[in-house]
Amino acid sequence: MSEVPRPILLGIVGDSAAGKTTLTRGLVRILGESQVTHISADHYHRYDRAQRAERGVTPLAPECNHLDILEQHLAHLRAGEPIIKPVYRHHDGSFGPSEYVRPAHFTLVEGLLGFHTAAMRAAYDARVYLDPPEDLRRRWKVQRDCSRRGYTTDQVLEELDRREADADFHVRPQRRHADMVISFMAGDSGDSGDQAHLDVRIVLRPGLAHPHLAPLTESDGDHLALDERDAETTLWVSGMIPRERSAAIEEMVWSRMSFASHLRTERLGEFTVGTQLHRSESLAITQLLVLYQLVTARAAVALGATDARMDRAPATAPHGA
Amino acid sequence: MSEVPRPILLGIVGDSAAGKTTLTRGLVRILGESQVTHISADHYHRYDRAQRAERGVTPLAPECNHLDILEQHLAHLRAGEPIIKPVYRHHDGSFGPSEYVRPAHFTLVEGLLGFHTAAMRAAYDARVYLDPPEDLRRRWKVQRDCSRRGYTTDQVLEELDRREADADFHVRPQRRHADMVISFMAGDSGDSGDQAHLDVRIVLRPGLAHPHLAPLTESDGDHLALDERDAETTLWVSGMIPRERSAAIEEMVWSRMSFASHLRTERLGEFTVGTQLHRSESLAITQLLVLYQLVTARAAVALGATDARMDRAPATAPHGA
Repeated sequence: MSEVPRPILLGIVGDSAAGKTTLTRGLVRILGESQVTHISADHYHRYDRAQRAERGVTPLAPECNHLDILEQHLAHLRAGEPIIKPVYRHHDGSFGPSEYVRPAHFTLVEGLLGFHTAAMRAAYDARVYLDPPEDLRRRWKVQRDCSRRGYTTDQVLEELDRREADADFHVRPQRRHADMVISFMAGDSGDSGDQAHLDVRIVLRPGLAHPHLAPLTESDGDHLALDERDAETTLWVSGMIPRERSAAIEEMVWSRMSFASHLRTERLGEFTVGTQLHRSESLAITQLLVLYQLVTARAAVALGATDARMDRAPATAPHGA
Repeated sequence: MSEVPRPILLGIVGDSAAGKTTLTRGLVRILGESQVTHISADHYHRYDRAQRAERGVTPLAPECNHLDILEQHLAHLRAGEPIIKPVYRHHDGSFGPSEYVRPAHFTLVEGLLGFHTAAMRAAYDARVYLDPPEDLRRRWKVQRDCSRRGYTTDQVLEELDRREADADFHVRPQRRHADMVISFMAGDSGDSGDQAHLDVRIVLRPGLAHPHLAPLTESDGDHLALDERDAETTLWVSGMIPRERSAAIEEMVWSRMSFASHLRTERLGEFTVGTQLHRSESLAITQLLVLYQLVTARAAVALGATDARMDRAPATAPHGA
């Protein structure tokens, strides 16, 4: 066992504008900037925007990314080693000077194809896939790409169509490798523009030990539902859940991670639209369930375990790396 | 044993303008572009030219380079794995977009601090240190930096003075880790400007098996000298050695690498000054002695050896990697 526990790696995968950065930013807010290294796999694109246009390819095709290097870098980060990372600049679609990056205690890696190979999947302590309904994702993508990446609405819509085949063939199949599949969606109101009150459906898979949530849903069937089948648990949280109900759920999850009580924060569920700060109860619960996996893995590794996964072959020695 | 033998790594170290690129280019000419990957460790500088000026540091200080990443990359290259390499642009002293690089059969890595750590030294199959007399190196540096890197003569001379302490403390001590220490120098004529007729002194160290050269020097004491002491062999070749004498030496070395006879070439000893092609007999012999190590290591690795070094602990199994 090395003196400093190795970094804990969270993989966040989802199609473009599926909400990866929103989830990541929230985790950074909770864990603290100094505790987190945040890496976007978009930097590992093989072609810049002009080259992609020339070749008629999308960044969603595996061969249009340096996934071999991403595999290598994930292994280095998990081992606590620094990397020199390529830099892709979304604002103009070009590559810039590379960056030296050290993994912090928690290293969050988000991207389009982060679960594409077995070596990448093996590097993460927890794997999250963001899976909003397509209409909501398209709306988010138009909003973001027009406001921050210099595209027009028509360009974004065309790009979405151009990407559909690769998304279907390469991005979405990665869902099955996730420990948590998270889908924010419009609730009963059907208003997907009301981002503070989106429902969330979270599929919890058996690769990780998730907190036992049954007691809660029994007491509030209107805003919560739990469905357990085939070793998978699906939690649904209404976007209209009252603050005190979500606080009770959060309290229950916090009580299962007493070693992380210093992280308790009012900032759970915060997100920004433009420069405006909002709060969502369903997002708060989602963030906390992800946080639970990070701090559990951190505690396990600090105690000499390889990690906290349930699906890993047992280590040969108690302190085996 | 993997199907494709791993790449053979040559480390070429020496102070700025010691002749690293001239040696490397010659080897590329002989081995063929497609067989060689050439990497300059200068790309691993931590600071660009402006940042160095601001901080008052030189690129010769280890802490001004990402040597941890260079170590990592050398290990990947030796394992036959690609890297994404940072890019430092000498013409303006800034960093550019990184590059994806695959190691070819022969991977030549030149730099200021390539032998600084044990992990770096262990990665190379052969280690060459270029050690010209200071007056000759200063002359070369002025020539190059003024013509290709946009400096004035006064700037280069000032920079040489500024670098002296770091060169003495960090660069020159690496000499002792080299398998071959190569010093081109003015001969009897004393004219260091006559680059086609420089003498060369090569110290051959026992980490590698070098070809046995005694028979040759016995027959031509005017142009060749051999000094064997303390397990080191020092070969001196006059810059005035006639073409037929150097051809005989080359023939003798070639005869010891019959498996590489397809590499025999008339281009041995060629070098360029500006756009003009020149030829030096002492350079030809030097290149061939380095080439000997590369092809010998390649043959040994292809036959299942870890490498061809004499100073490596024996592998535990005949095909041990």
